Amino acid sequence: MTRRLLVIGIGAGAPGHLTLQAIEAINRAEVFFLLDKSEAAAELVAAREAILKAHRRAPWRVARLASPKRRAEAHIHGGARTPARETTYRADVADWHSARAALLAPLIEAELPEDGVGALLVWGDPALYDSTLRVLEAVRATLPLAIEVVPGISAVQALTTAHGLVLNEVGAKVVLTTGRRVLEDFSREGTTVVMLDDGTGLAALIAREAEVPPAGAAPLHIWWGAYLGMEGELLMSGPLAQVGPQILRQRAEAREKRGWIMDVWLVREPKF
Amino acid sequence: MTRRLLVIGIGAGAPGHLTLQAIEAINRAEVFFLLDKSEAAAELVAAREAILKAHRRAPWRVARLASPKRRAEAHIHGGARTPARETTYRADVADWHSARAALLAPLIEAELPEDGVGALLVWGDPALYDSTLRVLEAVRATLPLAIEVVPGISAVQALTTAHGLVLNEVGAKVVLTTGRRVLEDFSREGTTVVMLDDGTGLAALIAREAEVPPAGAAPLHIWWGAYLGMEGELLMSGPLAQVGPQILRQRAEAREKRGWIMDVWLVREPKF
Repeated sequence: MTRRLLVIGIGAGAPGHLTLQAIEAINRAEVFFLLDKSEAAAELVAAREAILKAHRRAPWRVARLASPKRRAEAHIHGGARTPARETTYRADVADWHSARAALLAPLIEAELPEDGVGALLVWGDPALYDSTLRVLEAVRATLPLAIEVVPGISAVQALTTAHGLVLNEVGAKVVLTTGRRVLEDFSREGTTVVMLDDGTGLAALIAREAEVPPAGAAPLHIWWGAYLGMEGELLMSGPLAQVGPQILRQRAEAREKRGWIMDVWLVREPKF
Repeated sequence: MTRRLLVIGIGAGAPGHLTLQAIEAINRAEVFFLLDKSEAAAELVAAREAILKAHRRAPWRVARLASPKRRAEAHIHGGARTPARETTYRADVADWHSARAALLAPLIEAELPEDGVGALLVWGDPALYDSTLRVLEAVRATLPLAIEVVPGISAVQALTTAHGLVLNEVGAKVVLTTGRRVLEDFSREGTTVVMLDDGTGLAALIAREAEVPPAGAAPLHIWWGAYLGMEGELLMSGPLAQVGPQILRQRAEAREKRGWIMDVWLVREPKF
């Protein structure tokens, strides 16, 4: 008798991103654990509830979890990456996962019968820059759990779809990274995709490209999207030097107005 | 009046990967263009027909296209990448796209009314190492087309799901590349995912790791999957040095037995 948790990717915003597998999983669970953590919480919880209303055939229960604030937010952005800072960053993230797990474990134990099936609805794909699976791994240190993952359309796929792009150039790689690591991980060969950027990663790349244009390199182009597949979707693209600063302004305005933002961008030399 | 083509990602093998958007798109098209190119053709065409039978509410038509053989297959694998070889490779790929487009354009013109909606069902995600969008771009040089993309669950997502992995390590990048470029694009930092490998990329990485183990580096682990989400799914994982050669044997046997194989793998240091 082990509690079972379904970690269900629900796609990147568009209700049509939902897969048949996700719908089947939604109908297998009896309790849904909602773990939203950001200013986006209210709107994203409402989106999840709309999915349940549309696709869940039997009544369901919801168990809500308040999220601990991540310790040392200041570590996340700014400054150069050093091995010591990276170690600190990873320790902070691990602490935050543990703190969340310490809240979640008793909630699961209380709300889910020992032979029960619960579910978490995860924005995008649970395997791509999302903390849910790591938090559940930490939960398993104290509470036995069988975990089942259902993949979902990711924000990266919503971005390429919205702009009509192929993610990779012919015979070239794709690098996926985060806003805090973009200067180290960006590659002129191929395509670089940036997630979890609060704007500082983009600002840093614009500044570096302006200061030290690499010899013989073509100017970068950027493709950006926010609230992908949702009402109020924003799309911008063009030469990084011109459009990049416009994106940063648009991003700040939209975040101010809506109270939250989720966005993703990619850059490459438009050469092949 | 422009012909409209829906390029529909149908996921990486599991029928449950299909999204609601894909089902909606399947029911908007009147003609389905089937373009399979490999030994896998019969089995993959059958899988597409099963999807149509299950989800298409009205009758439909199918238009089939024989595929030209890619010129100079020998260019694709083996040997070092040089700028000249890369240029040749890209030219070969572009030629092959053009050859396909030259066959496809008249088929679309003949089979699809000027105000009609056609569709192509694409394995995985049309934006990730798939040629369909590039071939259609070439078709548009001679035939006006409105193109609409529906993203699908990719083989990479099927792989992480099957192994219960998070694709990225905390604070680390992910590199997506192909079998022919793995030696250049592989990164010890983070995770490297390899698609379109006929086994030579994996063999080359195993050999290099065995010959020149980098100082202070941990041994790599590999996670591999073939026929993901389909009947006969194969999964293997473990230390690259031990499990890598076993995967190559298993891969060759499975390909021999079934007549074709589609697989994907990822490697990283299991350290964070």
